[in-house]
Amino acid sequence: MAICGAHTTTSLHSPCTTVSNTGCFQQKQVIFFTSNRRSGRRHGGARTFFQVSCSVEKPVIIGLAADSGCGKSTFMRRLTSVFGGAAEPPKGGNPDSNTLISDTTTVICLDDYHSLDRNGRKEKGVTALDPRANNFDLMYEQVKAIKEGLTSLLDPPEVIRPPKIFVIEGLHPMFDERVRDLLDFSIYLDISDDVKFAWKIQRDMAERGHSLESIKASIEARKPDFDAFIDPQKQYADAVIEVLPTQLIPDDNEGKVLRVKLIMKEGVKNFNPVYLFDEGSSITWVPCGRKLTCSYPGIKFAYGPDTYYGHEVSVLEMDGQFDRLDELIYVESHLSNLSTKFYGEVTQQMLKHADFPGSNNGTGLFQTIIGLKIRDLYEQIVAERAGAPAEAAKV
Amino acid sequence: MAICGAHTTTSLHSPCTTVSNTGCFQQKQVIFFTSNRRSGRRHGGARTFFQVSCSVEKPVIIGLAADSGCGKSTFMRRLTSVFGGAAEPPKGGNPDSNTLISDTTTVICLDDYHSLDRNGRKEKGVTALDPRANNFDLMYEQVKAIKEGLTSLLDPPEVIRPPKIFVIEGLHPMFDERVRDLLDFSIYLDISDDVKFAWKIQRDMAERGHSLESIKASIEARKPDFDAFIDPQKQYADAVIEVLPTQLIPDDNEGKVLRVKLIMKEGVKNFNPVYLFDEGSSITWVPCGRKLTCSYPGIKFAYGPDTYYGHEVSVLEMDGQFDRLDELIYVESHLSNLSTKFYGEVTQQMLKHADFPGSNNGTGLFQTIIGLKIRDLYEQIVAERAGAPAEAAKV
Repeated sequence: MAICGAHTTTSLHSPCTTVSNTGCFQQKQVIFFTSNRRSGRRHGGARTFFQVSCSVEKPVIIGLAADSGCGKSTFMRRLTSVFGGAAEPPKGGNPDSNTLISDTTTVICLDDYHSLDRNGRKEKGVTALDPRANNFDLMYEQVKAIKEGLTSLLDPPEVIRPPKIFVIEGLHPMFDERVRDLLDFSIYLDISDDVKFAWKIQRDMAERGHSLESIKASIEARKPDFDAFIDPQKQYADAVIEVLPTQLIPDDNEGKVLRVKLIMKEGVKNFNPVYLFDEGSSITWVPCGRKLTCSYPGIKFAYGPDTYYGHEVSVLEMDGQFDRLDELIYVESHLSNLSTKFYGEVTQQMLKHADFPGSNNGTGLFQTIIGLKIRDLYEQIVAERAGAPAEAAKV
Repeated sequence: MAICGAHTTTSLHSPCTTVSNTGCFQQKQVIFFTSNRRSGRRHGGARTFFQVSCSVEKPVIIGLAADSGCGKSTFMRRLTSVFGGAAEPPKGGNPDSNTLISDTTTVICLDDYHSLDRNGRKEKGVTALDPRANNFDLMYEQVKAIKEGLTSLLDPPEVIRPPKIFVIEGLHPMFDERVRDLLDFSIYLDISDDVKFAWKIQRDMAERGHSLESIKASIEARKPDFDAFIDPQKQYADAVIEVLPTQLIPDDNEGKVLRVKLIMKEGVKNFNPVYLFDEGSSITWVPCGRKLTCSYPGIKFAYGPDTYYGHEVSVLEMDGQFDRLDELIYVESHLSNLSTKFYGEVTQQMLKHADFPGSNNGTGLFQTIIGLKIRDLYEQIVAERAGAPAEAAKV
């Protein structure tokens, strides 16, 4: 289960405009609530107060679905970094939280919408993966309020002004159709069973002293609900980052060298998939050769059109890992539609967070690229909104 | 055995310059001799008379090695066409000749250097593939004379003024080290046994009524000498065009859909290998996709560095065949270092000779590309020669 909280910053002061006859002083409030693992406190419900927004700048809503321990917090750090704000732990929040925030981005964890706490779930015999343990009505109401530009309060009380980017991350961001329809962009982080197992062994056995048997048992126990309720969400995602074992080392199961796929849905508004060399054709590319020398097992890229749950998609794949910076800038120079603002921005972002997990492989690269694509999506939406009244005034 | 002759045109009138104290009127002659299949006449030797050249324009010498029935004449038509002259059958030559000529290019067939005729070979028990049936001393002397810019006579007497491009084609252009060293560029046309067999069946069985057994027997009979004397020459070639069965159709042995490799030696003076997308890395490319629709079995390209007989090479491979023009221009637009003079020149050349065998596959494409590379090589050599005296004058 993810440990996370709802956080934002207050540095966004949007211009106040009249959105209703009552002006911008009529207020409602949304109470968000955080889990606090240390105190063991967990809410089973929420009081809701609405506060009318004085802003025309409504947030762009992003959904990120993933299991726990799948690197969501690293992804969120990379995302917020792309927007230029300093990423830092939430003020006054849970110090163990996976969530980080920046000037522009608010990330809330959907664990906050558990309608049943640990004891409640035990009594009813459901897991946190089960929709029955989650309050989708409340999730919908509150995300909708944020999307409409309403300010809200955290618990402990803290005013949330609508951020530029509002991310809901957790197990079920695309489960409920109403919530799904609020999302401007959705991402599914899909860690294959083999890699998940290797990672869990690394973390729970090496770092936490669990036995191999208990790890296996816990994975097996989660699997039916995971397959029933979490996994099916990937069909709705605009982008899926799929993490698989490498194919460069025969029979590798260490989970250290990874093959990562970025599956990008075609025809999504304001989202133009990245491509390698030639848009729409099928390509494999081993950049290691005369110009670039890579150590074992090297790097292999693949790109091409495909279908994914009946949708037309473009898939970019990276197997292997980078040794050095020049490999990354070399790769970046051959990718198109990256939505960078200058040549080398992907490499710069990756270098800035070289200490983050996955910075030398496809997880870091594709998370960074998705961050850039979300920035681009945000800017297109803002430009559209700015253009729309002007267009209306013309008529 | 190839049926061919020595031919040239007389349209090149080079400026007369003094190359010796005796001026440019002292003359020697080289007698070339042609085979004439219809009359059954074949020479067993040659009279040689030298004629001092009055030209500073010495020909660029190209060697093309290939077995008979491997498409050399089509290759020569494509090559001469790239140089802009009209390709036509040799005047006064053997009307059955495989050789074509243009304003700028002379092609001679090395069958003319057989030191033993059919009867002589039968007596001594050697094949035409055997070096003992070929007069390499004479080949060397005459090619050397041509390289030095000496004019020569054909038999029946016809003045050969040094052409721009002088091609020696046949079974042994790279066999003799002295002859090999005279070559400015060398090409080996390497038809795999499977394809050769399929082609022979098509030609000798379907068109000439031979039995399958006799075709198999004739291939088997040639094979030991071919492997001993012809095949080893490919290690010396600057470019090898290798023709293999397709891998796009499982277990295909029809020899209709071909996989063709263009193996280009690195570090050859005035020859800069063609590449796909990214020089020096390894790439596969299926252009058929969203932008380009191809019929079964499609088209697949591959490119990358490799080693070939211990030499560093770049290999460009095409499997499959073109349906339409837009596929070719699409492919051309993604190839670099083509040495074209304008965008689309490869496609234009291919269209010009759409009726030639192999125009819809890698044989035609790579022959055309090699033609362009030879034009480029020729122009670089001419520019060097023009620059060299000027440089000398400075000192």
